[in-house]
Amino acid sequence: MAILEVPPSNSWKIPGFRFATCASGIKTNNRTDLLLVAMEPETTVAGVFTQNQVVAAPVTLCRARLSQGQARALIVNSGNANVANGPQGEQAALALTQAVAQQLAIPEETVFIASTGVIGEYFPVDRPLAALPKLNQNLSDQHDWLEAAQAIMTTDAFPKMALARCDVDGQPVHVLGIAKGAGMIHPNMATMLSFVFTDAALSPESLQHHLVRAVDRSFNRAIVDGDTSTNDTVLVFASGRGGVQIHPSHPTAMETFATALESVCGQLARAIVTDGEGATKFVTIAVTGAANHADARTVASTVAKSPLVKTAFAGSDPNWGRILAAVGYAGVPLQVDHIDIFLDQVQIVAGGVRAPNYQEAQGAAVMAQKEINVRINLGSGPGKETVWTCDLTHGYISINADYRS
Amino acid sequence: MAILEVPPSNSWKIPGFRFATCASGIKTNNRTDLLLVAMEPETTVAGVFTQNQVVAAPVTLCRARLSQGQARALIVNSGNANVANGPQGEQAALALTQAVAQQLAIPEETVFIASTGVIGEYFPVDRPLAALPKLNQNLSDQHDWLEAAQAIMTTDAFPKMALARCDVDGQPVHVLGIAKGAGMIHPNMATMLSFVFTDAALSPESLQHHLVRAVDRSFNRAIVDGDTSTNDTVLVFASGRGGVQIHPSHPTAMETFATALESVCGQLARAIVTDGEGATKFVTIAVTGAANHADARTVASTVAKSPLVKTAFAGSDPNWGRILAAVGYAGVPLQVDHIDIFLDQVQIVAGGVRAPNYQEAQGAAVMAQKEINVRINLGSGPGKETVWTCDLTHGYISINADYRS
Repeated sequence: MAILEVPPSNSWKIPGFRFATCASGIKTNNRTDLLLVAMEPETTVAGVFTQNQVVAAPVTLCRARLSQGQARALIVNSGNANVANGPQGEQAALALTQAVAQQLAIPEETVFIASTGVIGEYFPVDRPLAALPKLNQNLSDQHDWLEAAQAIMTTDAFPKMALARCDVDGQPVHVLGIAKGAGMIHPNMATMLSFVFTDAALSPESLQHHLVRAVDRSFNRAIVDGDTSTNDTVLVFASGRGGVQIHPSHPTAMETFATALESVCGQLARAIVTDGEGATKFVTIAVTGAANHADARTVASTVAKSPLVKTAFAGSDPNWGRILAAVGYAGVPLQVDHIDIFLDQVQIVAGGVRAPNYQEAQGAAVMAQKEINVRINLGSGPGKETVWTCDLTHGYISINADYRS
Repeated sequence: MAILEVPPSNSWKIPGFRFATCASGIKTNNRTDLLLVAMEPETTVAGVFTQNQVVAAPVTLCRARLSQGQARALIVNSGNANVANGPQGEQAALALTQAVAQQLAIPEETVFIASTGVIGEYFPVDRPLAALPKLNQNLSDQHDWLEAAQAIMTTDAFPKMALARCDVDGQPVHVLGIAKGAGMIHPNMATMLSFVFTDAALSPESLQHHLVRAVDRSFNRAIVDGDTSTNDTVLVFASGRGGVQIHPSHPTAMETFATALESVCGQLARAIVTDGEGATKFVTIAVTGAANHADARTVASTVAKSPLVKTAFAGSDPNWGRILAAVGYAGVPLQVDHIDIFLDQVQIVAGGVRAPNYQEAQGAAVMAQKEINVRINLGSGPGKETVWTCDLTHGYISINADYRS
């Protein structure tokens, strides 16, 4: 079950997928803002979407199309989220997928779509529509996937991509993912889009099963600011062109594929947190000893979302009382005198109070690091969960107070 | 039932209360950090405290003493919160109240105590203990209440005080309050301390009844950063020395007093939000049309806590889609196509989508104001709630990344 996490390279290829990108004019300054991926017949698809009740038109469309399980194309734009535009926005999304279907001569319901960018501005659908013929001509399996990752960026400081390779019965399987997201990041899910491509063959049901598990262990652990977007989308496409079948009757193959998919999703999720708007530090919050998993997740995400904890990380300030205070208001039943908290190997809280041997210089040394591990043991049960977050800095304010300027 | 909200003045007097302040050395740079208030016999007391499960030693002590309903003294320090210090912290709080009781020759259980400041550092109890004899000598009803409000400040930019005067059967009743708090501000409750003094006479039970209602309509509506402190305390003391009895058998008097108390608490809560760490704008979020009051409060506080909404206010950016997105992830059942949203008089969302006549210049004009009213009508029922919040700025980061430096 060895998984090889492959460093980014322009030689990445995933059999069964061709793509092209362009600057269609949705974004200013001639930045790439459109990605078209074309897929071979019998490609299967699975998807997970935002839990926000206000959703973008593309999310509604993808949800409806997922049931038939087949995908032949994906069209993604950055620069405009096409949300809260009412019937006009729904028609724009529909028109764009119809045009893709016509260009590629494929069934309309096999075209998937995603949008990211400003919320509530009219979606200028004429621009991507006008760009489609040329995009179609440029489709190729020879492009660098970096271009695809760049085309879906908004406030991202860097493109995000990951590749895992595993072997099933001696045959190679590839899983390649791209993602965008830097703010509005919160479980269930982030303002994030991620698209994963594999050359394995899986039924839509198997693919959905693996995706739900992988998302729960990756993107749902990434917290930047606690805002949940209207557009969050993770889609996974399986072309089967690598020749390996992943079938429930072959548990080892299933487990190997699951691990590879989780590896790719985890790499992308950690990249999103690293690129958290204004972030300078990567922080892992690991909670153990909770009554159950849900309580562990609540405590971990409450600490990860606390502005006071996040600014303490930004200031390299071992003001650890803020961590204990956030645990205290998480809203889950606690036995306060059972709580232990560690910053890396330094124990700061023992039995709910300041650890007797704690020296502030020890805490300060950990807080000055670029990567910080916070371990919180609630001492009350078997529940555990880990989340990833970043610090809250002046950079976050600058990016979000001026995002549209 | 006319309530007179009296502008701050150094001539405020509340019969039955004497106080003194000093710099005991808990804070650096010789800043005042200790307040002692002495009260006449038969003064009654009521209190409301943090809902954080990790609580400061003074909160535990006050809760236990509230049951007997009588108060003769209040001792408050700023600069150290005395939380998570274990038995040592509890003994320090107890020792301080014992020393106050001894100095004033009053029963120990009538001494109330509150602390605010850094969490998790040992409480240097020797310093306030050493200051007590001189504080006792300086007790006077001639001091300016501004001094009391200043003595309890931490990161506050300005002292907070409010006075309301009302008449019951032609007799004047005074309610005077002081408060501190600027960050870690969230309902149930803020890092805030507030102490209210009245010359009316009320039973402890009546006083508690009025306080719970007033806090729910004032401090519990104030949101700065969503962090809930370990030390939040609101205490109200009634000396009865103004000669007016507020008794449940006299409903008009009860209602008049309730209104005056709510007025004072509301003024203090709004002052706390205005002084929100780094805040440059005061924002009122009014939700109507929710299925019930709890849903309205959840939606209002989700919007008020959203870092993306708060940075949009900071940037005077009419990026109103962030408001709709926050409503969408609040977690209450919504009929999205019933939602209307207004910025002051400008309708930005109608029936869940961008209002047809909305022009961005209109939104920009409202967002540039120092005071902004956001009205959200969910169109689904009678539930409503209003909360107050502020913008999220570079100032917040500077204050909290460097708080202890």
